[in-house]
Amino acid sequence: MDLEPAKRRVGEEAALLVEEGMTLGLGTGSTARWFIEAVGARVASGLHVAAVATSLASASMAARQGIPLLELDERGVDLAVDGADVIDADLRLLKGLGGAMVRERIVAAAARRFVVIADETKLRPHLGGPLSVEVLGFGWHHTLALLDQTGASFSLRVDTAGEPQRSDNGNLIADGEYPPPIADPEGLASRLDAIPGVVGHGLFLGMADLVLVGGADGSLRRLEPARGGPAPLS
Amino acid sequence: MDLEPAKRRVGEEAALLVEEGMTLGLGTGSTARWFIEAVGARVASGLHVAAVATSLASASMAARQGIPLLELDERGVDLAVDGADVIDADLRLLKGLGGAMVRERIVAAAARRFVVIADETKLRPHLGGPLSVEVLGFGWHHTLALLDQTGASFSLRVDTAGEPQRSDNGNLIADGEYPPPIADPEGLASRLDAIPGVVGHGLFLGMADLVLVGGADGSLRRLEPARGGPAPLS
Repeated sequence: MDLEPAKRRVGEEAALLVEEGMTLGLGTGSTARWFIEAVGARVASGLHVAAVATSLASASMAARQGIPLLELDERGVDLAVDGADVIDADLRLLKGLGGAMVRERIVAAAARRFVVIADETKLRPHLGGPLSVEVLGFGWHHTLALLDQTGASFSLRVDTAGEPQRSDNGNLIADGEYPPPIADPEGLASRLDAIPGVVGHGLFLGMADLVLVGGADGSLRRLEPARGGPAPLS
Repeated sequence: MDLEPAKRRVGEEAALLVEEGMTLGLGTGSTARWFIEAVGARVASGLHVAAVATSLASASMAARQGIPLLELDERGVDLAVDGADVIDADLRLLKGLGGAMVRERIVAAAARRFVVIADETKLRPHLGGPLSVEVLGFGWHHTLALLDQTGASFSLRVDTAGEPQRSDNGNLIADGEYPPPIADPEGLASRLDAIPGVVGHGLFLGMADLVLVGGADGSLRRLEPARGGPAPLS
């Protein structure tokens, strides 16, 4: 199944949400790149925007597309758009396969509107599967031992040369796999947040304001959180 | 009031808890240095220990004292000893004036026993006052805006040249001041932990197994958590 058309479709749809003068948050990954490309096409047609990138990779792609880049400051961003690895029925997200989840979370939290774009294979009844955690280099062995007590076995992500991979923040990435369903995602997020040495993780709860889901058949679904808005940030 | 004799007294007392073959955690600051010096004296007399340092400053002091240094690994440490800026009646701590609170927390959490040493001016009925938070450089303006919503106004710590000060982890330090009493320290810790961009903070709750308090009059008090052990880590 070729998912690229579905990813492209949601990327282009999200680009239609962009308005003149907005500051954007640019996500990272194979779906977010379609958003960046579609915004680039609108910029080429005369739209004026500026953007904060969640990774060096997305920053260079944006630069190639002629999208002016900014540093995130206290004004935040108007609209952040990003992909996700898993999305459950409550629009809770697992992210982190791209290793950029900490900057992605900072930008999503700084956004007045956070839109997630994904192909339909990312929609699942429950959260579960790979979860990535950014950890400080100092004491990482022990931090992983504490992570192992949360229901998954963690290991350090290494590059093709076998060297520990660094995040754009200069820290290490630990990967674990939680069998679905994760029974209490909010409780797990709190436990992860409280572990000394954890910089951030890929559980995004109560953050998505809109999820655009593209089907392999060309369909497009718009999912919004239940009335009352998303649950508190965690 | 000269507090150095009280600090020295508790540092020396804590050094008596060290046993042959232990791996120690060495705190940072003006009281912890007395512990390091007292351990150094025991090492000079033939005691064999190894130590993990919570800062580059404590590492160099330990090296000068002939204490062999280790990296923190999955085995953790046997005994960590550190100071605190404020200690309340439930042995909850505020730390961070020294800027090393994240490594201090990692080592304290990795310790089978965490002993806090302080002069009596650090004991207060309630938590409150300066609290330090380590934040990522990426998006720090916005992270400080989120911190400002927790009840204190935060600013970036700068060095004498006016440049942002970096932690040993390479991140920035934000300082806030919460008027005492902090009504719900556990709730505040969870809120701080959940802010994207926060690496760690100086609220140490339910971590101290023993607090040694030295008086200016030469007295020494031993405070232990209420029966049932410390509250869950947060």
